[in-house]
Amino acid sequence: MYSVEELQNVINTEIENRTGELKKINPVNLYAPVNYSLEIGGKRLRPVLLLLSFNIFSDKIENALPAAVALEVFHNFTLLHDDIMDKADVRRNKPTVHKKFDENSAILSGDAMAFLSYKFLLECRSEKRIDVIELFSKTAIEVCEGQQFDMDFEDRLTVSEEEYLEMIRLKTAVLLACSLKSGALLANANIETANQLYDFGINLGMAFQLQDDLLDTFGNQETFGKRIGGDIVANKKTYLLIKALENASAAQKTELIKWIDKKDFSAEIKIKTVKNIYNQLNIKELAQLKIDYYFQKASEIIEKLTIDKNKTEPLVVLSNQMLKRNF
Amino acid sequence: MYSVEELQNVINTEIENRTGELKKINPVNLYAPVNYSLEIGGKRLRPVLLLLSFNIFSDKIENALPAAVALEVFHNFTLLHDDIMDKADVRRNKPTVHKKFDENSAILSGDAMAFLSYKFLLECRSEKRIDVIELFSKTAIEVCEGQQFDMDFEDRLTVSEEEYLEMIRLKTAVLLACSLKSGALLANANIETANQLYDFGINLGMAFQLQDDLLDTFGNQETFGKRIGGDIVANKKTYLLIKALENASAAQKTELIKWIDKKDFSAEIKIKTVKNIYNQLNIKELAQLKIDYYFQKASEIIEKLTIDKNKTEPLVVLSNQMLKRNF
Repeated sequence: MYSVEELQNVINTEIENRTGELKKINPVNLYAPVNYSLEIGGKRLRPVLLLLSFNIFSDKIENALPAAVALEVFHNFTLLHDDIMDKADVRRNKPTVHKKFDENSAILSGDAMAFLSYKFLLECRSEKRIDVIELFSKTAIEVCEGQQFDMDFEDRLTVSEEEYLEMIRLKTAVLLACSLKSGALLANANIETANQLYDFGINLGMAFQLQDDLLDTFGNQETFGKRIGGDIVANKKTYLLIKALENASAAQKTELIKWIDKKDFSAEIKIKTVKNIYNQLNIKELAQLKIDYYFQKASEIIEKLTIDKNKTEPLVVLSNQMLKRNF
Repeated sequence: MYSVEELQNVINTEIENRTGELKKINPVNLYAPVNYSLEIGGKRLRPVLLLLSFNIFSDKIENALPAAVALEVFHNFTLLHDDIMDKADVRRNKPTVHKKFDENSAILSGDAMAFLSYKFLLECRSEKRIDVIELFSKTAIEVCEGQQFDMDFEDRLTVSEEEYLEMIRLKTAVLLACSLKSGALLANANIETANQLYDFGINLGMAFQLQDDLLDTFGNQETFGKRIGGDIVANKKTYLLIKALENASAAQKTELIKWIDKKDFSAEIKIKTVKNIYNQLNIKELAQLKIDYYFQKASEIIEKLTIDKNKTEPLVVLSNQMLKRNF
């Protein structure tokens, strides 16, 4: 069994090797943004989840490494394109790819990453690789659908809690779930267990995205890596805003809508005002309750698995770390 | 055996059915640009090539239809993203997706199409589908590389003929070759024949792209579907410009470079002036010679195949049509 930290080291080394290889090939301008985005790092959550899941059933983690890299490359592809669409300038405390290079580079290098992720997936010699490719393709389409809902919601005033939760399931949770199920499939786990790990990933992902929303408003930029308040500025229909609109007094609602409709405003004042209303309405606590709800559901799924608790322990460790964000 | 026209009808109907299905699913804003780009039509060359190749070895073309659709969807994905990068407003005589909708839609719906093409490929129940997915992924990366070289060349004054030919091989020829080889693989043709069809596709694709360059300057907008002279305006290092710079007198070269360097200019006058120099240097005839060279090579490969001539006849018919662009 590998610990979370050991697997993080394994994946970091593997990605270093891969970027080393990509640096040798042409066209340089296509692969430089790929390397830039992979080298910035991040938590490499998806590959670690895949390896943790694989490692429950098999110790030969080298067999799952290409798939682990594939998921990280795919995740970074989505960041390149999302950051253009969201006009985000900062990611992991560094300029985003379309700022560091240009928009065309972020589009085209992102595309190359989408296909590189398939190339890496195909390197896995498991008999289950076609099932993984099927799951991965379905997941990739869902991630696009989630991003579209997210953008659609920016132009709408009312988004229901249900719609929001479905959006984050697609945008975030399915990829974590796909990572876990892919690891299980590649290690030849039975399909029921693989599906339970998928469900675990969905609930973990829901909690994780809700926490991301919370940190976007209440975190600090240094540990969060993105500009704080971005969601408020962009009128993102996060859980926080949805709950605030739901619970607001008439006066608070008018104030919120005034700021949502404003075309010219100081970002700083908008963030401060909206955050102030969130505080009056205990939105932070409401969001925390929802995070706890999904985390609890995830924990129950893990506990019910008919697998030796020692085997799933590292996965539980990572889940705890994820929701406290202290790694 | 199916004729070219019959296969065109088959693929047109199949794409109609597919867009019909896509219209029923959410988010509407994600799938509307997908449907728009697929419904505009175009020649559907890649799926027809796949079906023609498949049909050499098998009559059950319904087994290859999902892969044929996949290649058309992939090709349209590249158009959505290339048109953003090239700032092209018109495609097939209609507004491009980023003009009709917006840039974010063209990015995200393009991404969805990339993954939809895998989803469709995976529908083929052939035992060779993993080989097709491997070939397709390799090809997709090459297409991105070709597009990057093409963009890189815009910022360079000197591009060698060799570099240009490698760029169009990647950008255009490999996808036609992949279509042909995929058809052969799905029909369980032997690998040598599949590879010969791949080589045929490369040469056909080279001729086809050279002709596209020729038509971009010397065609007419109605039949070409794009604005004439776009390559000249964008300083695309086409075969025409490379040969012109190679053969120009000192005065002609100075004039060409003056127009390449100009930041503010009338597109109309730039096109007229450069075209005039091309005419003085017989560039049209030089390009035609190169087209004929590749077409000849393609024809030789087909003739050498140890396959009944009746079987390859429809492929020869389509190749002839392609290079005359009269269908």
